[in-house]
Parts: sequence; structure tokens; C-alpha cells
Amino acid sequence: MQNFEIQTPTKLVFGKNTQHQIGTLIKPFAKKVLLHYGGGSVKRSGLYDDTKKSLTAADIEFVELGGVVPNPRLSLVHEGIALCKKEGVDFVLAIGGGSAIDSAKAIAVGVKYDGDVWDIFDDKAQITAALPVAVILTIPAAGSEMSGNSVVTNEKLGRKYGMGSDLIRPVVSIVNPDYFTSLPKEQLGYGVADIISHIFERYFTNTVNCDITDGMCETILRTVMKNALLCAKDMSNYEAWAEVGLGGIIAHNNWLGIGRVQDWACHGMEHELSAFNDVAHGAGLAVLTPAWMKYVYKENINMFVQFAVNVMGVSQSFRDPDAIVLEGISRLEQFYKKIGLSLTLSELDIPESAFEDMAKKATGAFFGNEHGIGNFKKLMWQDVVEIYRLCK
Amino acid sequence: MQNFEIQTPTKLVFGKNTQHQIGTLIKPFAKKVLLHYGGGSVKRSGLYDDTKKSLTAADIEFVELGGVVPNPRLSLVHEGIALCKKEGVDFVLAIGGGSAIDSAKAIAVGVKYDGDVWDIFDDKAQITAALPVAVILTIPAAGSEMSGNSVVTNEKLGRKYGMGSDLIRPVVSIVNPDYFTSLPKEQLGYGVADIISHIFERYFTNTVNCDITDGMCETILRTVMKNALLCAKDMSNYEAWAEVGLGGIIAHNNWLGIGRVQDWACHGMEHELSAFNDVAHGAGLAVLTPAWMKYVYKENINMFVQFAVNVMGVSQSFRDPDAIVLEGISRLEQFYKKIGLSLTLSELDIPESAFEDMAKKATGAFFGNEHGIGNFKKLMWQDVVEIYRLCK
Repeated sequence: MQNFEIQTPTKLVFGKNTQHQIGTLIKPFAKKVLLHYGGGSVKRSGLYDDTKKSLTAADIEFVELGGVVPNPRLSLVHEGIALCKKEGVDFVLAIGGGSAIDSAKAIAVGVKYDGDVWDIFDDKAQITAALPVAVILTIPAAGSEMSGNSVVTNEKLGRKYGMGSDLIRPVVSIVNPDYFTSLPKEQLGYGVADIISHIFERYFTNTVNCDITDGMCETILRTVMKNALLCAKDMSNYEAWAEVGLGGIIAHNNWLGIGRVQDWACHGMEHELSAFNDVAHGAGLAVLTPAWMKYVYKENINMFVQFAVNVMGVSQSFRDPDAIVLEGISRLEQFYKKIGLSLTLSELDIPESAFEDMAKKATGAFFGNEHGIGNFKKLMWQDVVEIYRLCK
Repeated sequence: MQNFEIQTPTKLVFGKNTQHQIGTLIKPFAKKVLLHYGGGSVKRSGLYDDTKKSLTAADIEFVELGGVVPNPRLSLVHEGIALCKKEGVDFVLAIGGGSAIDSAKAIAVGVKYDGDVWDIFDDKAQITAALPVAVILTIPAAGSEMSGNSVVTNEKLGRKYGMGSDLIRPVVSIVNPDYFTSLPKEQLGYGVADIISHIFERYFTNTVNCDITDGMCETILRTVMKNALLCAKDMSNYEAWAEVGLGGIIAHNNWLGIGRVQDWACHGMEHELSAFNDVAHGAGLAVLTPAWMKYVYKENINMFVQFAVNVMGVSQSFRDPDAIVLEGISRLEQFYKKIGLSLTLSELDIPESAFEDMAKKATGAFFGNEHGIGNFKKLMWQDVVEIYRLCK
């Protein structure tokens, strides 16, 4: 086990009807709030009205900015920053999924930064301050409700970059799985693919002696997959969504990643798909993950045997480890299919002609600085092209 | 799954040589520190000197109070409170195990409370403020390094009571498993019995649909037990101690208890053993836990079948669930023996003549207010006597 530090100060409030507590919960931090959200779903579900009512009851002023889209855009972040500055906003409240939350975090940082907030995503500046952020979650997927991360798309440059700091961990997150039961069915697949990818990115490692975190990753993977299938059968199953939602939080608050080298190649490769063709993040991850597994598993086959046996329940003879691993990967592909996900890039309208540019962007080679991606196996741009080809 | 709230803001710094960071880590909170510890072991290990050096390098003043003993005493807490008030201390730093930490938390609360701090343990007053507390852990057991709890013994009254509040969660906890490798061997058993009891108290529940937390409890129980046996073979095994130490933190920071009704009967019954005869807390838990299991399992046998199969690895025919459960309990008893623990109250010098008074104290009947203990099965004083008898 490696040395590590972790601090997860977010107050998590989970369960039925918890949205009514938002005003009381953020009162100690907030005088004037930016209410930040996407489109009509928060209005149809009643959450928008419940939130305004709770803020008003707690005597908290607010202004609002809707219009967040999946793969949230830098232009709306700029608009939010300007609005907050003009209105003297001191707190950002996201209601929605990862996109609304990530956009809210970027606004919270931008209000406290003198230059263009994109400098921070582009590693040209550090986060030194941010407005406090809270969340009422409506889609379990990104894990942004308890993470210190934000991913935003610069639509002019066609780049999707992330930033991270403990300063942008939400101070309060309300998670009411009732909202998940009315999601469109494709969100189940997208969300679950993202959740299990957050675990895979931490799970697949060459660090040894990580029994506690290995075991936690494995049990949460099994539980999320089992309950995702229950949701697929009956989208109104509150208890199954509660397991998926809690799994999604722990998947990305980094308790599963402590003491071990993490990977993150699949997220890096996927961000290029989303930037190129506005692919849903989870849809891209479901295509890339099995291909990545096939490409890298021989690097440390025992880690993948452990995955196939402990997570995917493969129980055939251990005398042929390659067969065990490939059966595990095949079961993962079957799982993705069962929750409605595609398995090829052509289904996502990503042509082979785009592979080289995307691979070079993902690894830095496009910008003359090829740092590569991933730690389980370091991937350079030619590796990434090979992986894209495996899923064409 | 039940609605829940959780907030675990402690900054956890884990691994080799991390003790040298203490000054830097607490600098934002501390001008003048009470350094609180037990006996000579922190001096022999060099931790005492390392701590003083780090505080001095960070320009933090300190006074000190040693002499904490297992089942920490109210009289020393009173002494610490008086010292802090006299010296204008604004921060309490515990170096040691659960006893030093719990004593430090009680001092931190007492400095900010006008009456006798025992009022709070005795439920006559609430915690409304406390000095911030930090920890350098030397014994993995109590989980107090990341919990909001403290247990102190009023040696005049012969009572051992706990208090809880998020205000006493440490702001910083440093955990360096190197210190565990030089513990006396009996501390391995005491510590591990306490750790797995913290999980059992949360695990055994009648709440259904808790897949995520069920699975996390089970994997951490298996991992701690496996690694405890490695420590028993070779007390210098850093990696095994790191697993036990990390397991001990998660066992009690309450991520395993969210969304489920918890039990806590064994802790209640054990506190009376410690108060009666100064028994080591872990030693008492190891005696009581299997007896409690035998007494209560029929209340919800499926929960105990799950324990026997998923934690203790029992794989015999499911047609005889009682046999599965009893085999699971028997394996737990064997485990306790292997790490050096006793299985009877007579070995702990607790005579049968003491049972009735202890049972009445544990359940409140002694004080004319029989509230009972436990939630898996509510136990009244006669039940507790029966359980004590099962392990005489």
C-alpha cells in the first residue's frame, strides 16, 4: 500500500424527500445563490419549485442560470461567472447531474479567478479559491456530487479537459434516488458505465497489498451491476436506484483509490470522443473499456484474473488465465448490452479517419508534448489508435 | 435502505514517516497545543521526540499531559481541562491509541463546557463546542482517529460511558502503520476484536436493501481477519498492519453504517466488563460477541447465514441454516483464539455473582430506567444475564 491522504468533507444527505432541506443546509454558507441547472426535467419533476421554496423559506436570495447541456460548455460557464460577479453571488447550487455540477464548479472557480477560467483546465493556472458549491443530484453517474473534480468542454477548441482541487468538493450534496426513477432509460446505461469506469480507473493497478480497496472496489462493482439490471427491468425500483446512487458516490469520492496508483486511460481516451462528436461520456466509456482491457491485460494478467473471478464471477479452470480474463471481459460486454449500451465506435458515429487525431490529442502528441496516458500500462498515441481500432 | 446523513471531514494522512507532517498539518488551527499521551511507548518509539520537533519547527507552542491508561479516566480528563484553561491551550493533540484520543476529545469538550464534562457523558448536557483535536495513531483498534465518539470511565462511579458529536471528529489524523509493528502481541488481539466489533455492530441489522454497505462490511471483515493472522505470524509485517489499520478506520468512520439500523448491544455489554474489572475492551468483546450471536441469531437467521457464508466462508448445505450459522460462529471463535484472545468471562476474572448488576447497569434497569440495548434484538437485563452466562 502506498502512502496517501484523503479528506472528504462533503455533508451527504441521502434519501427520500431530502431536497426540502436544501435551504437549511446551505444557510450557514449562502446569502445569494446562483441556481444552476439544465433543461426542463428539473421543472417537470417539481425539484425546481421545491428548491426555490426551500431557499425562500430559509431567507436566501437567488438568481438562476439554466441551459447546461451534457458535456457542459465553457461559454455557459463564462456567462455564469459574469452573472455571479454582476449579482454579487456568494454560493453556487447545482441541481441536475454531473454536467450541471461540473459547470457549477467551473463557475465557482471562475468567479474567484482574474483571468479566463479555461487557463485552469489548460494547466496554465492553479485553483486558489472558489465559491462554495452544493448539489441536488438528479442523475447518478459522474460522482461529481462528492468529488473535487470538474470536466468542461471548450467548444471553440474542441477540447474536453478536467480540473481538480479539494476547494471544489461540494459542501453539501443532497441525493434523493426518487429522481432517478423518472430518468430516460438511456441515462441508466450512461450513468452506470460512468460509475463502474470510476471504479475500474482505480481498481486496475500494479500496486500490490491493497486488500481493503481491492475488496471495496469488487463489492461495489458487483452491487452496482446487479442493481443496474434490476433498474433496467423496472425503472421505478427505488431501492435498486439507491444502491446505484450510493455506489456512484463512493465510486468517485476516492475512498476506493487510496494507497494505489490509479489508471485513468479510458477517461482520457473517452474525452476525445465526447469532444469530437458530443458522445455521451458513459456511452464512450462502454465502448472503450473492454477494448482497453483486451489491449492491456497481459501487462499484469493476475490483476485481470482477479477481476474476472471476483467481479464477473468466472469460475473456470485457472490453468488457462487468458481464457478466464477473456470470459470476464465478454461478460462485461454482455452487461453493457443488457443496460442498452453500444459496443462499437461506428454506432457512436466516430469514423476511423478521426482516430489518429483523437489519439494524438488524448496523449498530448497533437500539441507537441506526448506525455501518454494511463498507469496500468502507459499508452502513447499509437497504442490509443490500436484501442480505437479494436472497437471500430 | 434508510435515509441517512454522513460527513467525515477528517484529513487522513496515512503511511510511512507521516508523523513528521504534524506541525504543518495543524498549523492552520493551532497556536498552543496540549500534547496528550499515555506512557513510555511513545517515547521509546521516537514519536514523542518527532512530534515535539515538528511542532517546534512549525512555531507551535505546547504543554503536555501524559499518563492516559486503557479505559481512560475522568480524573485525568479533569486535570487536562484545568491545564488547558490555565495555559490558554487552543488545540488538543493525542498521540497514542483510542484511550489517548478519547481522553483528548473529552478534554477538548470540557474546556468549552462550564460544568463537569461528565454531565455530557451522562446525557445531562449536549456538546455545543469543542477545541479542535488531532491524532497521531499508534494502536489500530478504537477507530477514534476518524470518529465523532469518545468513551471515558468515571472511576469513582464505576461507569464507562460514551458521547458523540461531529464536533469531536479529529481535524487531522496521522496513521503510520510502522508504529503498529512494535506493539505488544496482546494489542493485536484487543485491537482486531474491537475493529471487527465496530463492523458487526453495523452489519447485523434487520434493515433490508443495504447491498453496498453489506458488501463493504463483509470485505473489510474478511480482509482484517486475513491480515490479522499475518500479523500474528510476524508482528513486523508493515503491509498487513496497513490493511488492519485502514480497515480499523473505515470500520468506525460510519461509511459502513449508513442507511441501516445499527445494533451496539455488544459494546454496551462490554463497557460493564471494563468498568467492573478494567478488562481490555477488545478482550471483553471477543468473549461476548460469539455468545451474543448464539443468543440472537434466530431473530433473523438469514442475516446470520449471510455472515457465515460471506464472511466466514462456510459452504455446507443450505438445507440446515442453523448448522451454517453455528459453524460460522465457531470459526469466529477459532479466529479469536488464533490471535490470542480468551473466550470466557472466567478467564477475564469476571465472576458470575457480578452478572446481574452488570446486566442491570448495561440496560439501565440498575438506575430505574430500563431502556434495553441493541436493535437486531432488543435485550433487557435478563437477556444480558443469559448472554453473560453463555460465556462464563
